[in-house]
Amino acid sequence: MEKMEEENLKKEYMRMAIEEAHQAALLDEVPIGAVVVHDGKVIGRGHNMRERFQDVTYHAEMLAITEACAYLHSWRLEDCDLYVTLEPCIMCSGAILNGRIKNLYYGAKDPKAGAVDSLYHLLNDSRLNHQVNVESGLLGAECGQMLSDFFQAIRKQRKAAHKKRRVKD
Amino acid sequence: MEKMEEENLKKEYMRMAIEEAHQAALLDEVPIGAVVVHDGKVIGRGHNMRERFQDVTYHAEMLAITEACAYLHSWRLEDCDLYVTLEPCIMCSGAILNGRIKNLYYGAKDPKAGAVDSLYHLLNDSRLNHQVNVESGLLGAECGQMLSDFFQAIRKQRKAAHKKRRVKD
Repeated sequence: MEKMEEENLKKEYMRMAIEEAHQAALLDEVPIGAVVVHDGKVIGRGHNMRERFQDVTYHAEMLAITEACAYLHSWRLEDCDLYVTLEPCIMCSGAILNGRIKNLYYGAKDPKAGAVDSLYHLLNDSRLNHQVNVESGLLGAECGQMLSDFFQAIRKQRKAAHKKRRVKD
Repeated sequence: MEKMEEENLKKEYMRMAIEEAHQAALLDEVPIGAVVVHDGKVIGRGHNMRERFQDVTYHAEMLAITEACAYLHSWRLEDCDLYVTLEPCIMCSGAILNGRIKNLYYGAKDPKAGAVDSLYHLLNDSRLNHQVNVESGLLGAECGQMLSDFFQAIRKQRKAAHKKRRVKD
C-alpha cells in the first residue's frame, strides 16, 4: 500500500513537470519541464526557455535548480529530487551532480543528447564525489508523445510555409 | 610574426580571465575566471560566485556564457572563443557544447572534476552535433598557482581557528 502511494506521488510530481513542459510549448519552445522536490514540497519549477531568452543555459532543469537553490538559500540540494520530462543533457547532468541532487526521475529517453543513460552514464561515475539514483520512464510515453507532437507540428508548419512560397513563386 | 601576435593575444585574453578569477578570490570564492571573445572583442566575463549567491550554476564559464548570449541576442555562440583559468566541469562543458563555442582555451587541469581532458573528453565526441577545439595549459602555471595559494590560505585559516578553539577549551 505504501509502495503504491509512493508511486502515485512520483507520478503526481512528474505531472507537474509535464505541466511545465506545456508552458514551454505555449511559448513555441521545445516542451521540456522540470520540478525540484524537497521534503514533499515543490521548491523549484522550470520549463525550457532557450529561444525566448536566447540563453543557452535556460534549460528546464537549470531554471528549476536555480529556483530550488534560492528557496533553500543553499547550492547544496542534497535531499532534493528532480523530476524532468526528458533525459537530461550533459550540462544539466553536470548541474545535478554539482548540486548533489539525491534522486532523478525522468520521462522520455533522449538518444541524441541524453547524458544519463543514452550517450553517457554521468550520474553513476564512481570517480566523481557524488552519484545520483536514477529512475527512467516515469510517465515516459506521455512525455515522449508531447515532444513528438511538437516536432510533428513544426514539420507541418514548415511544409505549409514551403508550399505557400512555391505558389507565390 | 603573425603566429607570435596570435599567441600574445590569446595570453592577453587569458590574463583577463585571471583578473576575473582574482575578483572571485576577493569574495572568498574559489578563484576561477572566464571570458568569451567574439570577433576580437570580449563580450562576456564571469567569475565563480557559487558561495555568494548560493547557486550551484554560478560557475565562471556559465556567467560569461550567459553574458555573451545577452550581448549577441543569441544562444548560438558559434564564432566565439572561451578562455577559462581552470578545466571546465561537466556542467560547463555541456554549456560550451550547447552554445556551439568554437575554441576553448583553459589554464590549469582539474584532475578531480575536469571533463575536457581529465575525466572525460566531452568536447571531442563525434556522436554529438558539435565538437570544440581545445588548447590547454595557456598560462597554466599562473592559473594553477592562484588556486594552490587560495586553498593553502584556507587550510592555514582552518588550522588557526582549530588552534584557537583548542586554547579556549
